[in-house]
Amino acid sequence: MINKLVDKIKKTGAPIVVGLDPMMKFVPEHIKKAAFEAKGETLEGAAEAIWMYNKEIIDKTYDLIPAVKPQIAMYEQFGIPGLVAFQKTVDYCHEKDLVVIGDIKRGDIGSTSAAYATAHVGKVQVGNTMCQGFNEDFVTVNPYLGTDGVQPFIDVCKEEKKGIFILVKTSNPSSGEFQDRLIDGRPLYEHVGEKVAEWGEQLMGDSYSYVGAVVGATYPEMGKVLRKVMPKSFILVPGYGAQGGQGKDLVHFFNEDGLGAIVNSSRGIIAAYQNEKYAKFGAEHFADASRQAVVDMIADIDQALKNR
Amino acid sequence: MINKLVDKIKKTGAPIVVGLDPMMKFVPEHIKKAAFEAKGETLEGAAEAIWMYNKEIIDKTYDLIPAVKPQIAMYEQFGIPGLVAFQKTVDYCHEKDLVVIGDIKRGDIGSTSAAYATAHVGKVQVGNTMCQGFNEDFVTVNPYLGTDGVQPFIDVCKEEKKGIFILVKTSNPSSGEFQDRLIDGRPLYEHVGEKVAEWGEQLMGDSYSYVGAVVGATYPEMGKVLRKVMPKSFILVPGYGAQGGQGKDLVHFFNEDGLGAIVNSSRGIIAAYQNEKYAKFGAEHFADASRQAVVDMIADIDQALKNR
Repeated sequence: MINKLVDKIKKTGAPIVVGLDPMMKFVPEHIKKAAFEAKGETLEGAAEAIWMYNKEIIDKTYDLIPAVKPQIAMYEQFGIPGLVAFQKTVDYCHEKDLVVIGDIKRGDIGSTSAAYATAHVGKVQVGNTMCQGFNEDFVTVNPYLGTDGVQPFIDVCKEEKKGIFILVKTSNPSSGEFQDRLIDGRPLYEHVGEKVAEWGEQLMGDSYSYVGAVVGATYPEMGKVLRKVMPKSFILVPGYGAQGGQGKDLVHFFNEDGLGAIVNSSRGIIAAYQNEKYAKFGAEHFADASRQAVVDMIADIDQALKNR
Repeated sequence: MINKLVDKIKKTGAPIVVGLDPMMKFVPEHIKKAAFEAKGETLEGAAEAIWMYNKEIIDKTYDLIPAVKPQIAMYEQFGIPGLVAFQKTVDYCHEKDLVVIGDIKRGDIGSTSAAYATAHVGKVQVGNTMCQGFNEDFVTVNPYLGTDGVQPFIDVCKEEKKGIFILVKTSNPSSGEFQDRLIDGRPLYEHVGEKVAEWGEQLMGDSYSYVGAVVGATYPEMGKVLRKVMPKSFILVPGYGAQGGQGKDLVHFFNEDGLGAIVNSSRGIIAAYQNEKYAKFGAEHFADASRQAVVDMIADIDQALKNR
């Protein structure tokens, strides 16, 4: 799957991923109205609204991008119906041949991590039958529990040719509270990064590992260091746009080959119509605004990479 | 909810929680047979099996215990039907007046943590209607992202009078890989413990905070230190029984008042019939074996607390 991701990035010329994080405040009124008329102001109604919203954005952007990253929390908040919408979104993205990164940030002790891995990137045995719960291509994983919390994901990924991105340095303001603390003179995130590189060695694709890392666009200097610590790991970079990251901040996340990073934008793309810059599209044509925002984001990163 | 937990512990004399982590290998054959006949060897069949299994264990133990802790990964691996079984289990435990600790180990950047908090301990607005996704009383939270990943859970808990347990020192063998690393001469888990105490101050119950901690039974010496670092935090202690923890290891997790800790056992209770000690009950009477294992666990901890 890492090879497919690399191929699709080369083909589209777009090292970006669209974050499908459908908060209700992003969903245009006409969609909410239609969904609530059909299913009521219920969890089912909310799920219908986010599914309709997602589908239109996917339809208008899938040919430009290699991958999407649905944030499962935004679906989980609508309970079972929300998770059904998550699954429909994942399946629909696969129909469009997109790589799907499930942003689930799971992580637990060994047997429990194995169950999460099974749930999202694996298969589960029921009697004599193999079944599938969810079906992402990559998932994000929290490293706090150490190797035996991560290894079960790697084991399932080996089997299924799927991959993970491990949280190393997150994009949020207080990420430094623990992640930046110095251990033997170097911050915790560097130690985690070293482990990512080590874990990744056991599961290599053609040029990059199936084991990647998450490093926030909001911390470009740390991205520069971590790029060197994990040369064979793809870096998933959240925090572009709404969280403050810009194209020029991102160049150090990439290797010399122009690969090695994939930059996520969520609200900057999916709620572009709410941004003054794209307001001319109007709420009715929200997905056209998203398409234009994708075009602009690709150009911004391309320009930054050319100027480095 | 922390007050209810304390009350129920006093009333039952049982500072324990039964981990409802229904792995398929624990479910007796006669239950699997019935479930698969009804729903096939499908995710629905698996979900039916774990629900039937849970229900019988709850029916046979609820009067002895204050709380249960379903591990959501064990349900999530069966996809949507598995999560429906999770929800049914939570609701059924509430019917039996049990406190429900959702072991979900979520944690993300602010807006996403807010969505997780909404999903599991809060309410979500759909149009003009407030809806509810899942409905636990407490959830477990991963601290790797720092304060702004934790605060949204606390905010929702304030509103709903619910609580959280934050991972401090986990029970697994490689938990020390990052958690034990020294920062300014003290291990990371102590720094996290200090934050737990600080976060907990803003949300106090009568005698304990709504913000608790997870510290593994497998690390009793660290439990001793952390008990002092977080005097007002309840400690959820996994790792008793199958993972190696024993009653005598646990006394330091408790305060002088005999409170402040709640010890989890999962497979030691729910799969007791598979243990030689309880084999006489047989698979047909697996829930009677679970009840006996609960009685024995309460006695073991009670004895240890008396002997300290």
